[in-house]
Amino acid sequence: MAPFKIIAFDADDTLWHNETLFASTQESFYRLLEPYHDRAWVEKRLYKTETKNLDLFGYGIKAFILSMIETAIELSEGRITGTEIAQLIEHGKTMLRAPVEPLPHVTETLKQLADHYTLLVITKGDLLDQEAKFARSGLDPYFQKLHVVSNKEREVYQTILDHHGVTPQQFLMVGNSLKSDILPVTELGARAVHIPYHITWQHEYVDEKTENRAYNSLAHMGHLPALIEEL
Amino acid sequence: MAPFKIIAFDADDTLWHNETLFASTQESFYRLLEPYHDRAWVEKRLYKTETKNLDLFGYGIKAFILSMIETAIELSEGRITGTEIAQLIEHGKTMLRAPVEPLPHVTETLKQLADHYTLLVITKGDLLDQEAKFARSGLDPYFQKLHVVSNKEREVYQTILDHHGVTPQQFLMVGNSLKSDILPVTELGARAVHIPYHITWQHEYVDEKTENRAYNSLAHMGHLPALIEEL
Repeated sequence: MAPFKIIAFDADDTLWHNETLFASTQESFYRLLEPYHDRAWVEKRLYKTETKNLDLFGYGIKAFILSMIETAIELSEGRITGTEIAQLIEHGKTMLRAPVEPLPHVTETLKQLADHYTLLVITKGDLLDQEAKFARSGLDPYFQKLHVVSNKEREVYQTILDHHGVTPQQFLMVGNSLKSDILPVTELGARAVHIPYHITWQHEYVDEKTENRAYNSLAHMGHLPALIEEL
Repeated sequence: MAPFKIIAFDADDTLWHNETLFASTQESFYRLLEPYHDRAWVEKRLYKTETKNLDLFGYGIKAFILSMIETAIELSEGRITGTEIAQLIEHGKTMLRAPVEPLPHVTETLKQLADHYTLLVITKGDLLDQEAKFARSGLDPYFQKLHVVSNKEREVYQTILDHHGVTPQQFLMVGNSLKSDILPVTELGARAVHIPYHITWQHEYVDEKTENRAYNSLAHMGHLPALIEEL
């Protein structure tokens, strides 16, 4: 039996689909700017604006809409119309209201693990949006607490461990982002399980080969209980 | 000696100036829309848009910018230009970077109280923005914890009391909003101290006469230690 007391999960693209929602809005964005620039250039500039705004705006849908509007104005040299910008805001609202669809195997796995461990969600993003998605997902009964944090650096994980009174040896983190969910956790001496999602936002990308492998990787959440038994 | 273990403070317009920052951006917004509508109508419509968007966007500066953009497009019937919208985004960024100025008497009072009580901040708003303001304010050494919440209903306060393991009798809340800081706290049977700010956002307004007075009011934070001694 593994020594874990707490198993914590990232939310977006670990418990439920998220990046697909951004990708679909970005498609509409590229179409809107087609008269001005080719797709590759728009993609590059949007990412640049998002990265530049990250310290001020943080993560989440509102930040994304604002960066899209800013990029659209820049790339059209102010020629983008009010009506077109209103469409971008509407896309954002559609994203905020979108149904939250748990990934395959997630519900059964959580149900099984919740009998033996304290389960947490640790996620970046907009506080209100993440709380609303957590409630809409129907997964909230399995979790003791949702932690919405502004970044996922090592110190943030340490604070959460202290808050729950556990050692790194008693803590396991599960997530799709090497940069946010895995590396800072293994740096603390805790275990982490990487479950990749088919799209990773450029900003979260880490070259896997350059990193040591002090973590496990799984193809999907359904394999998690068996792995935990082995650890 | 009062029986309190925890004294919690609202942040915006209680510890530091905030509404003045919004008011100054709103002035620029009214000037921008002067060619289309008179000020009173713009003010009314902006408030209507903010209220309508509250469930989706929550509180904070990003939500405010998006509601300004949406209102500007509506009221100009799409004629507002990209360049003008870019100005609104710039105003928002200026707000996000603005210095955080503690209100008079706040620093001395916190310093004095921190020796005897556990001090908390309980605030609505954007997670990243509130964390950044807390750090910029220079007040963070006096507080044990910053709680950023998506709403200030009675249940939210109950969860915080449970988290810190205190009874309502051991808890005192200090804030400028009757609706958010005072009434839900007195409903729990805890004490609250109202310190009005000279501007209150319409959404936070409660008619004081219609409410019972199970709380104390002070003109400024400097009177708080003496009041606590009396309670």
